[in-house]
Amino acid sequence: MEYGKIDNQVLERLSSIVGEANLHTDAPTLEKYSRDETPLVEGSLPDAVVMPASPEEVSEVLSLANDLKIPVTFRGQGTGLSCGAVPILGGILMVFERMDRILEIDEENLMAVLEPGVVLLVFREAVEKRGLFYPADPGERTSAIGGNVGTNAGGMNGVKYGKTRDYILGLEVVVPSGEILSLGGKTVKRSMGYDLMHLLIGSEGTLAAVTKVIVKLVKLPGIFMTLYVPFDDLHHAVDSVCDILRKRITPTAIEFVERDAILLAEEHLDRKMPHDEANAYLIIRLEADKEDDLYEEAEAVSEICTDRGAVDVLVADTPETQARIWDIRSNFYEAVVKARVADLVDAAVPPAKIADFMHAVKEISKEHGMRIIGYGHAGDGNIHLHPLKDRLTDEEWERKLPQVMEAIYRRAAEFGGTVSGEHGLGSAKKKYAPIALSKEEIEIMRGIKSVFDPNGILNPGKVFD
Amino acid sequence: MEYGKIDNQVLERLSSIVGEANLHTDAPTLEKYSRDETPLVEGSLPDAVVMPASPEEVSEVLSLANDLKIPVTFRGQGTGLSCGAVPILGGILMVFERMDRILEIDEENLMAVLEPGVVLLVFREAVEKRGLFYPADPGERTSAIGGNVGTNAGGMNGVKYGKTRDYILGLEVVVPSGEILSLGGKTVKRSMGYDLMHLLIGSEGTLAAVTKVIVKLVKLPGIFMTLYVPFDDLHHAVDSVCDILRKRITPTAIEFVERDAILLAEEHLDRKMPHDEANAYLIIRLEADKEDDLYEEAEAVSEICTDRGAVDVLVADTPETQARIWDIRSNFYEAVVKARVADLVDAAVPPAKIADFMHAVKEISKEHGMRIIGYGHAGDGNIHLHPLKDRLTDEEWERKLPQVMEAIYRRAAEFGGTVSGEHGLGSAKKKYAPIALSKEEIEIMRGIKSVFDPNGILNPGKVFD
Repeated sequence: MEYGKIDNQVLERLSSIVGEANLHTDAPTLEKYSRDETPLVEGSLPDAVVMPASPEEVSEVLSLANDLKIPVTFRGQGTGLSCGAVPILGGILMVFERMDRILEIDEENLMAVLEPGVVLLVFREAVEKRGLFYPADPGERTSAIGGNVGTNAGGMNGVKYGKTRDYILGLEVVVPSGEILSLGGKTVKRSMGYDLMHLLIGSEGTLAAVTKVIVKLVKLPGIFMTLYVPFDDLHHAVDSVCDILRKRITPTAIEFVERDAILLAEEHLDRKMPHDEANAYLIIRLEADKEDDLYEEAEAVSEICTDRGAVDVLVADTPETQARIWDIRSNFYEAVVKARVADLVDAAVPPAKIADFMHAVKEISKEHGMRIIGYGHAGDGNIHLHPLKDRLTDEEWERKLPQVMEAIYRRAAEFGGTVSGEHGLGSAKKKYAPIALSKEEIEIMRGIKSVFDPNGILNPGKVFD
Repeated sequence: MEYGKIDNQVLERLSSIVGEANLHTDAPTLEKYSRDETPLVEGSLPDAVVMPASPEEVSEVLSLANDLKIPVTFRGQGTGLSCGAVPILGGILMVFERMDRILEIDEENLMAVLEPGVVLLVFREAVEKRGLFYPADPGERTSAIGGNVGTNAGGMNGVKYGKTRDYILGLEVVVPSGEILSLGGKTVKRSMGYDLMHLLIGSEGTLAAVTKVIVKLVKLPGIFMTLYVPFDDLHHAVDSVCDILRKRITPTAIEFVERDAILLAEEHLDRKMPHDEANAYLIIRLEADKEDDLYEEAEAVSEICTDRGAVDVLVADTPETQARIWDIRSNFYEAVVKARVADLVDAAVPPAKIADFMHAVKEISKEHGMRIIGYGHAGDGNIHLHPLKDRLTDEEWERKLPQVMEAIYRRAAEFGGTVSGEHGLGSAKKKYAPIALSKEEIEIMRGIKSVFDPNGILNPGKVFD
């Protein structure tokens, strides 16, 4: 594909669309926006950073870029973990920081209308004040809702509440021609031809720009409780998860974590978890509207864990003690990648296969002589694994890492799992996608890409080649 | 589009694929499968009815039809209401009655794997025996799961549980080339390129044949209660629905119905509802695991309805009394269309707009001098409206009906609603879709259609032209 270049004339036209103050070509700004949070990857400089303030400005920029075949990559808060927002072929990086308004919190319909740049944390606080809850909860709460839509972001609350897709009711999007489309809307049911909205969710900015998001809200649960459960054996922890699900208890979240990740996070934050001497932990969040129900469920979960050999069951029932645990949990990723050279696997398997999958991962680790730390969303089968360089030489690491990554993904696929559960493929993981996707599927995706983006200008080099 | 014809040679090849006993060309069989349950529409005869028993047979038939450019229409139980399963251009009608096995009920993952011909009622009973619940609940319980996927069927439980899409985790499908694709699977999270599975849900058999369905199950609620609430004024009933939602109470179902529909159903079934003298009714199903919770919620709902002027609140709390009410509810459609000449509107509006929408419908009714009976899923904004011929002359009916239909859809669209909430567009409603879909959206749908089905053999003449 031959792409157009950004010359002074193009810059002038971009400047006339978004205003001079919102067009950046200086080295520090380009550098600042050249990467997301994917580990082990070099950034890529855009040629220009454009910050539109409205769907109309997005439309004008896309239409111009489409005419001149200039690549356009979209970026919310740049918290992605697969290089989805990295402009690997240069061109225009469209940053949605200025489109960060909560346009409406519709308490009658239990819905909200957001610009794509709204930061999740800000939004959650705004709705919680009104007794409402936006349950999709990616670990990275500083992410933007537009990015969440782009990757169909998941997170902690998957067990009970599912993922971003489950809360999206409508999208306003702009296709490369500059047409603004309004997909879905404030209705619960919809059966009117092909669901383009669902097709766009998870498409990582390769089909259209998202300029508005209508989300569904639910009632804020009355009370929460967090159980922090140490186990001497990883497998006992994972077996407990299966038992909890088998008994049809659905906690808000069931996270599991190996000791190494706890220790790294404690060190990184200079804070202590209530316990850090066991090999593996479950962190379980329960919710209810009534205290009795909450304690009854907590008891049932404790009993299961104890039967499976839990060393203890620590109960956090004040907001503060719970927040302390979940804050540390939120920092596992950063703690691991800041402290070590580590890659990241985001596979998902059927929930009941977690124990088998973790067992397979340990075998791979042994076979290749590479440590692999695991933690993640045990309750929904979405596990994050960090292969670690530790004391391997550079040569060993570079040789073994792709083998280990591929071996893990192959085992996940054998269990009926995915290469990415919630981070997306971007450019960092796209090479592994064919392990779990057929040639025909990828061929159809390519066909769909040409329908939306015949010039291939949107986020080129992502998802598939 | 020039389509191929079915001659003796084609029949021989079809027969060799599915077996002679499963290929039908006799007039009574063709006639039997020439229509679904759409009102006011003539049937269309297929040239051959083919009943495959496996994905491989489906694949061989499709591949043959694709080579010869012969139209193929899919049919589950033929309970559709938009002619989705009617072979309007003849060709092959592929009937999934033989592929009706529940392949697996996976109690560990709370999932099930079904062939497309599984009848919903049979499936629900099978899972309920194990304490599990499949919540997507189209009024027509004799429908097949494959058809539910095709239309993204909704139903009664939308308020609390959503629609078919929300319970689909994986599909096995066959595209016209004969390739069998496995989309999605038994994972809760998934972010691997474009979600073809979600694109296929609701595509009414125009992109691929569905040969396997993986669905999510939930825990069967412990106890149910049904409130049957008469109102003298339709608007008070509808206002009560808004109040219930505003107070963040989420019943399993909130149906509303006008008196005329109750009377017709009573007559049709020769059975009595507990009350039939008020102008409008709400039928509200509540569920809980504990009796106290159930009664507490029932009290809150009763209070809201009483405050809004309910004449009475009748409580059905035994399985039998509840079943009697819901059975009659399930027969509204049949009662209306069997007793009268009536068309059917399946619009959905934002839940909080129901009162305004119903008000607009009454205005349209008055303006055109045509009675319009309403009932439906008030809790999720999906209303079924029957314009009735009554004493209009044939000429008046034929002249006024399209005007009334269009006027209703336009008002629904103005409220941010849809032309079809759950029945699909098929051939019966496709002409109204442009009221709520933009030209660009339809153009993109057309592009997607050519990616999947370049020869246009799948269910031609449906969804869009």
